Amino acid sequence: MSGSGKLPNIATDAVLKQSVPIPDDFEKVQGMDFSQDYAYNSRATDLIASMRNMGFQASSVASACDIINEMNSWRGKFKDELPEHERGGEFDDEGRQKATIFMGFTSNLISSGLRETLRYLVQHKKVSAIVASAGGVEEDLIKCLAPTYMGDFALPGKSLRDQGLNRIGNLLVPNDNYCKFEEWIVPVLDKVLQEQEEAMEKLGKDGLNADSAAIWTPSKLIDRLGKEINDESSVLYWAHKNKIPIFCPAITDGSIGDMLFFHTFKASPQQLRLDIVADIRKINSMSMEASRAGMLILGGGLVKHHICNACLMRNGADWAVYINTGQEFDGSDAGARPDEAISWGKIKAEAKSVKVYADVTVVWPLIVAATFAAKRP
Amino acid sequence: MSGSGKLPNIATDAVLKQSVPIPDDFEKVQGMDFSQDYAYNSRATDLIASMRNMGFQASSVASACDIINEMNSWRGKFKDELPEHERGGEFDDEGRQKATIFMGFTSNLISSGLRETLRYLVQHKKVSAIVASAGGVEEDLIKCLAPTYMGDFALPGKSLRDQGLNRIGNLLVPNDNYCKFEEWIVPVLDKVLQEQEEAMEKLGKDGLNADSAAIWTPSKLIDRLGKEINDESSVLYWAHKNKIPIFCPAITDGSIGDMLFFHTFKASPQQLRLDIVADIRKINSMSMEASRAGMLILGGGLVKHHICNACLMRNGADWAVYINTGQEFDGSDAGARPDEAISWGKIKAEAKSVKVYADVTVVWPLIVAATFAAKRP
Amino acid sequence: MSGSGKLPNIATDAVLKQSVPIPDDFEKVQGMDFSQDYAYNSRATDLIASMRNMGFQASSVASACDIINEMNSWRGKFKDELPEHERGGEFDDEGRQKATIFMGFTSNLISSGLRETLRYLVQHKKVSAIVASAGGVEEDLIKCLAPTYMGDFALPGKSLRDQGLNRIGNLLVPNDNYCKFEEWIVPVLDKVLQEQEEAMEKLGKDGLNADSAAIWTPSKLIDRLGKEINDESSVLYWAHKNKIPIFCPAITDGSIGDMLFFHTFKASPQQLRLDIVADIRKINSMSMEASRAGMLILGGGLVKHHICNACLMRNGADWAVYINTGQEFDGSDAGARPDEAISWGKIKAEAKSVKVYADVTVVWPLIVAATFAAKRP
Amino acid sequence: MSGSGKLPNIATDAVLKQSVPIPDDFEKVQGMDFSQDYAYNSRATDLIASMRNMGFQASSVASACDIINEMNSWRGKFKDELPEHERGGEFDDEGRQKATIFMGFTSNLISSGLRETLRYLVQHKKVSAIVASAGGVEEDLIKCLAPTYMGDFALPGKSLRDQGLNRIGNLLVPNDNYCKFEEWIVPVLDKVLQEQEEAMEKLGKDGLNADSAAIWTPSKLIDRLGKEINDESSVLYWAHKNKIPIFCPAITDGSIGDMLFFHTFKASPQQLRLDIVADIRKINSMSMEASRAGMLILGGGLVKHHICNACLMRNGADWAVYINTGQEFDGSDAGARPDEAISWGKIKAEAKSVKVYADVTVVWPLIVAATFAAKRP
Repeated sequence: MSGSGKLPNIATDAVLKQSVPIPDDFEKVQGMDFSQDYAYNSRATDLIASMRNMGFQASSVASACDIINEMNSWRGKFKDELPEHERGGEFDDEGRQKATIFMGFTSNLISSGLRETLRYLVQHKKVSAIVASAGGVEEDLIKCLAPTYMGDFALPGKSLRDQGLNRIGNLLVPNDNYCKFEEWIVPVLDKVLQEQEEAMEKLGKDGLNADSAAIWTPSKLIDRLGKEINDESSVLYWAHKNKIPIFCPAITDGSIGDMLFFHTFKASPQQLRLDIVADIRKINSMSMEASRAGMLILGGGLVKHHICNACLMRNGADWAVYINTGQEFDGSDAGARPDEAISWGKIKAEAKSVKVYADVTVVWPLIVAATFAAKRP
Repeated sequence: MSGSGKLPNIATDAVLKQSVPIPDDFEKVQGMDFSQDYAYNSRATDLIASMRNMGFQASSVASACDIINEMNSWRGKFKDELPEHERGGEFDDEGRQKATIFMGFTSNLISSGLRETLRYLVQHKKVSAIVASAGGVEEDLIKCLAPTYMGDFALPGKSLRDQGLNRIGNLLVPNDNYCKFEEWIVPVLDKVLQEQEEAMEKLGKDGLNADSAAIWTPSKLIDRLGKEINDESSVLYWAHKNKIPIFCPAITDGSIGDMLFFHTFKASPQQLRLDIVADIRKINSMSMEASRAGMLILGGGLVKHHICNACLMRNGADWAVYINTGQEFDGSDAGARPDEAISWGKIKAEAKSVKVYADVTVVWPLIVAATFAAKRP
Repeated sequence: MSGSGKLPNIATDAVLKQSVPIPDDFEKVQGMDFSQDYAYNSRATDLIASMRNMGFQASSVASACDIINEMNSWRGKFKDELPEHERGGEFDDEGRQKATIFMGFTSNLISSGLRETLRYLVQHKKVSAIVASAGGVEEDLIKCLAPTYMGDFALPGKSLRDQGLNRIGNLLVPNDNYCKFEEWIVPVLDKVLQEQEEAMEKLGKDGLNADSAAIWTPSKLIDRLGKEINDESSVLYWAHKNKIPIFCPAITDGSIGDMLFFHTFKASPQQLRLDIVADIRKINSMSMEASRAGMLILGGGLVKHHICNACLMRNGADWAVYINTGQEFDGSDAGARPDEAISWGKIKAEAKSVKVYADVTVVWPLIVAATFAAKRP
Repeated sequence: MSGSGKLPNIATDAVLKQSVPIPDDFEKVQGMDFSQDYAYNSRATDLIASMRNMGFQASSVASACDIINEMNSWRGKFKDELPEHERGGEFDDEGRQKATIFMGFTSNLISSGLRETLRYLVQHKKVSAIVASAGGVEEDLIKCLAPTYMGDFALPGKSLRDQGLNRIGNLLVPNDNYCKFEEWIVPVLDKVLQEQEEAMEKLGKDGLNADSAAIWTPSKLIDRLGKEINDESSVLYWAHKNKIPIFCPAITDGSIGDMLFFHTFKASPQQLRLDIVADIRKINSMSMEASRAGMLILGGGLVKHHICNACLMRNGADWAVYINTGQEFDGSDAGARPDEAISWGKIKAEAKSVKVYADVTVVWPLIVAATFAAKRP
């Protein structure tokens, strides 16, 4: 064809196909307005506002902020207007219903400098319950004993092991921190075991009922650890103080597990027990009693699935924000979009939900600064 | 400059910099040899051989096969040559030490058609212990009751929920399957509770010792479920049959958790308990007793961390194969390379290890066909 | 709530929601059948068959094979049945219309051991046109002069630069290879320049018409390089031999660009020209003339967009297979699913298309072995 | 083992291994300080400061800001202190050497609301040269004619095509925009062709020398388009105004290519030519003349490779910031870390460099607000 001939209509028809008229409610893509002062060294709320119609994940970050503001500010009826059986759930200081917010985070976020931000949320009662992986519990405690340091993703493992430096991404945790943790936690475990055994001896005819003092669960142990650490820099401390349960069904999967393992030898033939059935009852009950439920899920794996599953018990969360780097193509739960959770009844079909595809450390400080921490409490 | 002048040396020096002589042991990149018959409709072992020096993840897949073949074929001493305290671990039919292989997989892999391949490995005792997430346990059982179907990643959640079809990536699980599961499991839970209560009543002066019949753990419950399902298509069935423990510390995080939760109301004031401390002791003990330890970790999250953590108890695994799509940039455990585990002492510095960056479904059938299933048993 | 009370209906209603009856055409998820001999050291076609209903990307790989088999085997009318103006496009040896297949690949795939597989496809005329990035052209030539070697993703850059070893993922290309390439290509560029200048002198009154010998385009230069290299291991050699054009609009973006840059100084005031307008006319014309069009796109970036854009000229490709690791969340073209191309008219709405989320090296050898190379030619 | 025995030393030795003393220069991981007012609705510079020791990609974002501030503020000698042949490169208003900054961006970023931010940088001469993909050029022009709208990643392609709405991630571009673009650009192409032909007729004995007016290159055409669009919202307008070249070797790979293709039929037998050799000479020359060179690469593919390749001509850039979502495991150039470029001599071994793993829209507004736009100009 080249060199002569006339252009077939097929190409121009395809390339120059006309559009339908654009509906009035279409929103134009638009970024920062540099004619305004706000654009310079912007404040978080102005940055977020400029990202709303920017497209791609900028828009998702802005949506996440909208959803968070909505779940944070929602208020229902006053407690005394409600029939007795609806008086579960969360209430604000004036006695009005507010949303029960489940926040999940993975271990690495506590290892990172997000710990301070997560603690802020717990300290100021911005969330109602937490689901964490084992490391998310113990690293919070360990940081009260000794710091974690900046490292590099490329530091070679053998040399680090020789030096007793454990790597988490571009962070380093000296192994001595775990030695200090062992020294701190063993007496606590001794006490807990003693209390378990004393309660066992007092067991009545009903045996190990749900609330028996002889039953320790991960959330009960975590609450106790938060009390014992008694350190205002700690997420667990504030969770204990503010009665915000921290669920961690696989609490044995990490350093606490190592310590519990060692402790079984030390305490033999006695042995501390951690029952996970009472905890699933507890988290599911919170979900069912909630007047509204919001999910803030930072990272994937168990912490994501566990909160979603709890929200199935109420036929779906009312708001959901996921932030992680998982992709759906491999069928992983981490990668599943909120729409997959809708198919399961874990998020309501009419709920507002968003997934932000990003490393949490990159977006969470900005999101919190523009929402929960937009004003000093 | 354009239009005249002479080329400065800096550019030619940079572009045409000379190399050092290439060492003799450098391997040339080379792909399929199409002069050979094997290249056509290749067998798995020939495909893998052609991938060894192909580069990128093709080479990683080939390395994974090498490592698997090595951990599978390693043999140590005869049992009766060993002192009494070293007679833990695994032995082959001739009484020689073999590697203890820990295999982990996430729930979605059991939902997928990999279940048949995973079952093959358990049926033929190719692995010594399993770590699974909750869905990895229950979906195996549920598939004995009703099938999972092919779907599409883009099916809309609301419409699926209206139809009672739950989506997992591009798979669909009818919600009726969970109803059938409830019918099947409730009588089992009733029996388990009864056994727990009977054992509690017989408790002697030592209380709830480690091996007390009154203590149920996730692995003990899973073993029982495998026995009760009594179906040769099941991974759990063969695990029970072959005494391969399946660890699942967060077994409450899924449908079994829902059923346990419901059961607490049905059974009240009695309540089934699941203790996770005895299980961490059990998996850690397997790791310490192993003469050699290999890790096959399919997917990320808890199943990856739990196996690695167990291998810390022996100061590191001797072989490690990770297959997942996680990336290290967000500091996630799923994304961590084997070299990060070396820094923690979870993999030995001198161990052979590889991470394959791929959806497991894409590579695992090929890998198994070229290694464990290279020959019909 | 814990400890007493009865389970609210909301939870059981949500968890035990009934499904609609399952339609008859739903396909069950099913993996390898280990009761069959084929499962052991499987052949490529059997592996693919077992992956079809496996879910996740296993199913996508199987779909890719189905689509490839369909585009490869499609036949239309005999040439002499067609009106004159429809006799463009591709025909098989018996004179029947066959699909025009556009294959795109990125540079790294030629650096890897996939080069042999890509060459096989070109040698045996399995594809009609190629779009490559600059490195995808030059690395094919350079491999005729000296090998690329296996390396490691973690080798440190500074030490490699000191040794003159260039890293591409886990591959190493000695910089001497580029020196050898310079020696080889400069005389070719000299000849090409001379031909350009001679043709310029003979220009008639019409000036630089479309097919003027004075006009060199990237595809014309690449064809010449394929002729000059005269090496049966080369993709370019076979493309020249089989008249399969290789399009590379940004051919200056790599070592050939470096050489052309140096050559402008050497040849000054003369200068070789490479016109890209004539090439866009050529590829678009191929698309418009094709009776059917298939796309095989390995990797992302320019090679993906360029083939899609060419297929817009025919109002959409009839088959499309994408294989890459890009994700849609960042709005990148690499990450866009085939469905995005449908919105643009680049793939027909009724076309069969699939995206496989995988490193190409992991799946392409298997896919080719199960399709194009299922039988020895 | 369970139930008795004593804990082997191997476990405690491995778990409680001691660390070396921590060097004084180790930096502690630390996040936002909520005792300070700055933490609330933070300004960009305070957010970035709090991210510096936060770990993972938060730290990478902070590093990117440090590197940008350094390349932006670096100053060398006064022009008149320099020998004649070193007076290339960039100078500030006071006549002091400053860094030549190459910025690359992919098409989708111009489609998104980042266009305003990119325009700001060009308008205020924060960068010296740009490399864009074809869409990055044309979408800037098209946005002067009609807006792009917010859409959704999940909108189905067939229905969009029926409506003439083209999807780019979660954005929509009405196809009418391309019709308007055609109306606008055809007269420009007519003029350009006329100028080309007039210059051809005047060709002297030297033929098509490097700077011949008869030679049009992509960068020359883009400069002309920027002049013709004459719209202050446009990146191209300001690039023209500020003499910042925009390189786009594959400018035919998009709508401009479609228009050039159509134009070859309209103008036949004449044809506009676009030579890419003169452009590679131009960008490489800028790199060699630069007193210092910095790279800001937003996205992957050609725009990344082209800037890196240009910097090889000077034996490496002095600063490099990559922001994209590519991963190294597949050997893609997009995924390659800066350290890979060091092996090639494209980044100096002693350069400061960072790769931020993020969708550009999520981090670039924050980065710009904390660096280039920390103060109103």
